[in-house]
Amino acid sequence: MTHLALAPLPADLRPQRIAYTPAATLARRYVPHAAAFASGQDSPRAYLERCLEAMAAHEPSVRAFVTAAPGRALEAADAASRRWREGKPLSPVDGMPVAVKDMIETTDFPTQMNSPIYRDWSSRRDAAGVWALQQAGAVILGKTVTTEFACSNSGPTRNPYDSTRTPGGSSSGSAAAVGSGMAALALGTQTHASTIRPASYCGAYALKATHGALHTGGVTPLAPTLDHLGVFGASLEDLWAGAMAIASRAGGTPPHRGMRGALVAPAASKPATLARLAMRGWQETPDSSQAAFEAAVERLGRAGVRILDQRTDDVVAALEREIAGLQEWSLDILAWESRWPLAAYRAHGDSQVGERIHDLLGRASSMDEDRYEQALARRRTLREAVDALSGRVNGFVALASSGPAIQDHGFTGSRSYAVPWTLVGGPAFALPLLSADGLPLGLQLAGFANRDEELCAIAGWVRDTLTA
Amino acid sequence: MTHLALAPLPADLRPQRIAYTPAATLARRYVPHAAAFASGQDSPRAYLERCLEAMAAHEPSVRAFVTAAPGRALEAADAASRRWREGKPLSPVDGMPVAVKDMIETTDFPTQMNSPIYRDWSSRRDAAGVWALQQAGAVILGKTVTTEFACSNSGPTRNPYDSTRTPGGSSSGSAAAVGSGMAALALGTQTHASTIRPASYCGAYALKATHGALHTGGVTPLAPTLDHLGVFGASLEDLWAGAMAIASRAGGTPPHRGMRGALVAPAASKPATLARLAMRGWQETPDSSQAAFEAAVERLGRAGVRILDQRTDDVVAALEREIAGLQEWSLDILAWESRWPLAAYRAHGDSQVGERIHDLLGRASSMDEDRYEQALARRRTLREAVDALSGRVNGFVALASSGPAIQDHGFTGSRSYAVPWTLVGGPAFALPLLSADGLPLGLQLAGFANRDEELCAIAGWVRDTLTA
Repeated sequence: MTHLALAPLPADLRPQRIAYTPAATLARRYVPHAAAFASGQDSPRAYLERCLEAMAAHEPSVRAFVTAAPGRALEAADAASRRWREGKPLSPVDGMPVAVKDMIETTDFPTQMNSPIYRDWSSRRDAAGVWALQQAGAVILGKTVTTEFACSNSGPTRNPYDSTRTPGGSSSGSAAAVGSGMAALALGTQTHASTIRPASYCGAYALKATHGALHTGGVTPLAPTLDHLGVFGASLEDLWAGAMAIASRAGGTPPHRGMRGALVAPAASKPATLARLAMRGWQETPDSSQAAFEAAVERLGRAGVRILDQRTDDVVAALEREIAGLQEWSLDILAWESRWPLAAYRAHGDSQVGERIHDLLGRASSMDEDRYEQALARRRTLREAVDALSGRVNGFVALASSGPAIQDHGFTGSRSYAVPWTLVGGPAFALPLLSADGLPLGLQLAGFANRDEELCAIAGWVRDTLTA
Repeated sequence: MTHLALAPLPADLRPQRIAYTPAATLARRYVPHAAAFASGQDSPRAYLERCLEAMAAHEPSVRAFVTAAPGRALEAADAASRRWREGKPLSPVDGMPVAVKDMIETTDFPTQMNSPIYRDWSSRRDAAGVWALQQAGAVILGKTVTTEFACSNSGPTRNPYDSTRTPGGSSSGSAAAVGSGMAALALGTQTHASTIRPASYCGAYALKATHGALHTGGVTPLAPTLDHLGVFGASLEDLWAGAMAIASRAGGTPPHRGMRGALVAPAASKPATLARLAMRGWQETPDSSQAAFEAAVERLGRAGVRILDQRTDDVVAALEREIAGLQEWSLDILAWESRWPLAAYRAHGDSQVGERIHDLLGRASSMDEDRYEQALARRRTLREAVDALSGRVNGFVALASSGPAIQDHGFTGSRSYAVPWTLVGGPAFALPLLSADGLPLGLQLAGFANRDEELCAIAGWVRDTLTA
């Protein structure tokens, strides 16, 4: 039961640069590999050992973990290995090594939220998602670096493909751990851009399911109508099986029903029509990333998908206009809803919380409830603009970030591409199928609320088509 | 900064029996007394000293507190006393001594939830309600006894008017502290009956505001669509000012708007029509309590209020039928929504949680999501039956409990009268205006969602009429 405590600051960071292509990823698939666990050719124990080798190789450069317990994880992987050999795995994710963002409560590890206020703090309970994964036999390997309370000061994590670059945030360590093959699955959160953006930067698959469809119990709240549990996976199959292990056991955040679907990823399904969205971020996207996206969309079109966009379709254009106008009111929702707990944290002393927390509280103090309710009304209008396309398109395709990871450690990158679907509340996948300048770049596939499984089937087809 | 740690078990309990009448209550009003703080005739410091005297007199019998910090409270009361003398109180509740249920997070005290799992645990943040009250100048005196996780094993608290009887639960200590004059205000919670019932037993005023209208941030969740922050007060004026100190600073649980109204209680307002409800509990109510209620309703009628009931009005009869049928589906909602966190607590070991937690988890394991959604549909039907009366009555009058406190310490009493309005989600007041067998008995006044202030004005008139 070893706790591997990692230094909080990367003064001794070891630089790392590894060229990324979707075919040459460090990510390490688990569920697609399960036949080998059952046959005895491989085992969850051996899989975990490979993850620990990846930790030894990359963690000095990446700093994804705050705490980890490899010894305890190996014991749990041994038990899972026996279950697979006996033909009695607890679930498709039995034995899967999982990393958990340090905003999410765990019994076996402290939950520290990258805040001096919470140093060595324990919630003494597992979050709903953690509890469910453990019931399914998954192995909690450790806690991963988050920005402070998922909204402010960055942690020490670096991008696994270039340690001069950010991993994105706020789920920095979860994206980096999966992207670098240290874990098959990771839990994160998304209140603004915190899952889709770091997945794009780190070469991980990720799902922000329909708002409420994955139970957020035990996730430290920030803004309740925006807070999502996010899931990162080494493959689409890992991602879906991990998310369904949660949904089938813990359900949704009451009263929302849990995400529905089979326990394993659905068969790939070709969409008839996709809408291509600029998502406010196109102007700030470098040419090489624009070109990578254009090429992917063209390839989907050549494969027979009808592509609508704002130039060719008035309803898509109306949606893009709503998205283009969301900057101020989306921040109003975030600032107003996060007054508590942020004010309660700031009560420990102004210097105990980061600058962005002061900014958010300042914004909230300039607001009143009417302005908040106006922002909620704008969000309803945005959702109606999405729903207006529900009979006409099967999903939405966009970039997952405005280019690959930027060379910054304090700023976790633009949120332009990720915020819209946080507000829409529908499902969004980040698919690590593009690259630009030798760095990962995610393709985002977004869909309609409560149709997560249908979107996953489309994501499978998109992946197959773009990697064929 | 003294922490007064109280023994967990009342082996050395000092028996206490004090005859209750609404005119001879131990409760100690604060807000109605504020003119004396401003004039210098009295001070929050002196008020707190009287509360501490009440603690010295009654706490050995009542055991309302888990922890208390009288020294720190006296310092805060001194600061408030200066502000009142200088004509600059922070709010109507500046200096008011407040007790906080031990399910509600506090920075200055551990939050232990009457569970061995949480012994000496700290959340390191103040709940939204606690934060708001402190901003308003209120003085947090200590944490009060709760049943285990607000749903299972009872704590040591006894009824202040008869220590052979229960104080009710789950907000046992909060009701007892206010009912016995140890605090002017207390925070509790209500997920089923946990505010209205103990208020009835302990001679305290209480408000379960419209669901969501008082921010539940930092209240340990049990069943999110049922969880309410509850407020106990020594008078209606204390109750309202305390609740508005929270609503005006912390607002509601997002996205619900905060309870609206003036910072002080509205003027009394006579209702034209009230519906009298049996609330499933009439058959189990002893004759003396039935008689006390009948006399009160008759007096309201004599004062000119039209009283409808199920014998005389079909729409009221339809509502009573919905209420009569809620036993099973209301437990379905509670059990399903509380799977997490209860399962996460039970993961510490079967013996680490009480019997009722096993019962709830057992019930949930026999359910599926469809049955939960059927229960939600039944709740919508109940709410429609209430709304059908919105143009015809100004509110609903019922008992707050099926008689005075029972002679039991393990069972906190019938929930029949309190559960219906938890499910309705509208506001409900417990008014300590009746007595039976020399014990407190609350009158419940319930109303329509988001019309809390209007109901408070009616409550004022009811109080004035019944105490005239």
